[in-house]
Amino acid sequence: MGEKSNPKEAIVTTAARLFFSQGYHATGLNQIIKESCTPKGSLYHYFPDGKEELAHVCIGKANEHIVHKFRDTFAAYDNTGDAIRYFIHETADEAEAAGFTGFLPFSFWAAVETSCISDRLRKACQEVFTAWQEIVAERLRLDGFHETKAYELALLIISMMEGALIISLTHQTKEPMLNAADYLSVLTKNADLMN
Amino acid sequence: MGEKSNPKEAIVTTAARLFFSQGYHATGLNQIIKESCTPKGSLYHYFPDGKEELAHVCIGKANEHIVHKFRDTFAAYDNTGDAIRYFIHETADEAEAAGFTGFLPFSFWAAVETSCISDRLRKACQEVFTAWQEIVAERLRLDGFHETKAYELALLIISMMEGALIISLTHQTKEPMLNAADYLSVLTKNADLMN
Repeated sequence: MGEKSNPKEAIVTTAARLFFSQGYHATGLNQIIKESCTPKGSLYHYFPDGKEELAHVCIGKANEHIVHKFRDTFAAYDNTGDAIRYFIHETADEAEAAGFTGFLPFSFWAAVETSCISDRLRKACQEVFTAWQEIVAERLRLDGFHETKAYELALLIISMMEGALIISLTHQTKEPMLNAADYLSVLTKNADLMN
Repeated sequence: MGEKSNPKEAIVTTAARLFFSQGYHATGLNQIIKESCTPKGSLYHYFPDGKEELAHVCIGKANEHIVHKFRDTFAAYDNTGDAIRYFIHETADEAEAAGFTGFLPFSFWAAVETSCISDRLRKACQEVFTAWQEIVAERLRLDGFHETKAYELALLIISMMEGALIISLTHQTKEPMLNAADYLSVLTKNADLMN
């Protein structure tokens, strides 16, 4: 194990990997220290508030990664529908490559496990979902959607992506995600039919 | 605390309440024993395999409850769209009444937390999602949908319900669920427009 980098970075990378693969509750500080190959003092030096503070940083890093992925994908496609379809297919491929295990996406441990134990972490997750919704809504406005409709549709897209991911991981098959990708792609091109 | 009933029932009721309100990992057997007011020996007598076996029973019980709710709701409405809309509104009201905390719906702890630690529990969750999909698909066929379309649409409905619930609980507001309810209601009435 042991990510090569400075101690703070090694701790965050290891913590993120463990939180995402085995969950928040199941991950202990001792395991993070051991697998990051950093001295015990480093973790407490950089993260005096311990696990919750570390989780907060990991939520921020995971969000950055996904926001970049959204922006890159949107830049590469003519319309929101095709971009979302590609984005979901990519995520489904990643989940499959990880064997549908040890692959806990953002919402899983963050929004779910931590919401019931820490309001600070719940709020961090709320900001993440809001950021995603804003990026998608912004792109939908470029497609010609009005503000309110763009926000509603964006919320729907994020909800569907999260839900389909859960079902896919539980079934250990890409089908629920690909089903959602097809539907969302058609929906964003025909949303005027849905009023 | 202490649910009044026979020891086995008291253990299951208490375990389900704790798993659902604080998650699988965060719930210990000692807490279940204490809050169910049963002797320590009872839990190990009825559930010799311990926590995993107990969780398996709780998944089954939660599923029964939701399957009944689906059937009752479908029986009360003329079409799938209106029934799903009502079902989601009811769930949203329950979540709000519980303060959006201490309210971990089925998918949360079950599919999410346990999938990565136990294949037996993952499979139990898979069966639950499949059962829901079949009930919804069956109802959609009564609306005139062909078999394949009914299954796809049912999968979409379950995915959307799960995802919207996660976002609602994270935001501590009913809006994402009500947004999903509106769309799904319109969608099931106009699915022919989406091909």
